[in-house]
Amino acid sequence: MRQFVVVGHDVPTTPEFSLGDLTGAGRLDLLARCVTAGFVLSHGIREDVRVHLVLDGEYAVHFEGSELQGLNPDERSTAALVRTALEDREEAIGHVAAETTPGVSISRRDLAAVLDDAGGTVLRLHENGDGVAGIDPPDDPVFVLSDERDLTDEEAALVDERADRCVSLGPRAIHADHAITVAHNYLDTDGFSEY
Amino acid sequence: MRQFVVVGHDVPTTPEFSLGDLTGAGRLDLLARCVTAGFVLSHGIREDVRVHLVLDGEYAVHFEGSELQGLNPDERSTAALVRTALEDREEAIGHVAAETTPGVSISRRDLAAVLDDAGGTVLRLHENGDGVAGIDPPDDPVFVLSDERDLTDEEAALVDERADRCVSLGPRAIHADHAITVAHNYLDTDGFSEY
Repeated sequence: MRQFVVVGHDVPTTPEFSLGDLTGAGRLDLLARCVTAGFVLSHGIREDVRVHLVLDGEYAVHFEGSELQGLNPDERSTAALVRTALEDREEAIGHVAAETTPGVSISRRDLAAVLDDAGGTVLRLHENGDGVAGIDPPDDPVFVLSDERDLTDEEAALVDERADRCVSLGPRAIHADHAITVAHNYLDTDGFSEY
Repeated sequence: MRQFVVVGHDVPTTPEFSLGDLTGAGRLDLLARCVTAGFVLSHGIREDVRVHLVLDGEYAVHFEGSELQGLNPDERSTAALVRTALEDREEAIGHVAAETTPGVSISRRDLAAVLDDAGGTVLRLHENGDGVAGIDPPDDPVFVLSDERDLTDEEAALVDERADRCVSLGPRAIHADHAITVAHNYLDTDGFSEY
């Protein structure tokens, strides 16, 4: 199982945003692209993946690859799934997630709770981390990424407490959705060795 | 200079499409994501890149990194640049490109003409190609990709005539925009060796 935890800042925690103006909705466009980068292949989707979007530390929206139906690769339709989840946010009680569409659920988990529930080997992605090509891929990686803002000091501290290591995907700082694509490539090729 | 040539099939060659329904416009959503994957970094854009979208063999829209202004990472605003280029398509005469917004131009080049004008080392991306990790990155790579359809036999033949080699980015078939992201990572890390 591969998991990606994407920490969103200043993103909507209510469904009152327009699908036609996702860049005006706290960079929900970027979070939507993170979801599609996590799942879509040329033919079908990756079933052994979970993506968690942490929305301002208030809610988390969870995507489960083995149960997703009809995920399209465009950001608008993915953002619509997030909006539906937020419409049903009152059904999420405590840390218990409520499914809002097949394979998509919402909970009141913050970043710490999402990481604690994820299990697996937590890898913080950061440009100052160790180069990923020199590291054997773990069996159940949990990659932690931030949106266009860096993690706050508080978020970074709680990730570092739980992370096995901090890894870098390359010398240039890239967007979170592109980082997910590269991380998948690292795992698909078993550390850039199998093609 | 890094170049990416993306071959679009059944895509609009006139500007009569809705920015709110890009998946209904011959997968223009995918082509738009190819452009942003080609250019955007966390802070700024890649200036040493050109992306060419070949639209049904009738027009090509060219993006020049050193001249682009205000390219946003969401697919809708990038698709708007393509639409503007198509609105001005009558200004493209023969193979001479007409600039339609800063760094964006349109020409009547087909795939063969785009490749012949690109120069550099042409690399066809295909899942049956040689694993890219074992290949030294060329100085001026020109990657050729197709949209969600495979290249036609005719297109494949003319690419193969001009390609130095056929390379694979990994064992799983991924979308063209994700392939561009992985190709950049291969080049950024000098063949997965520099982090």
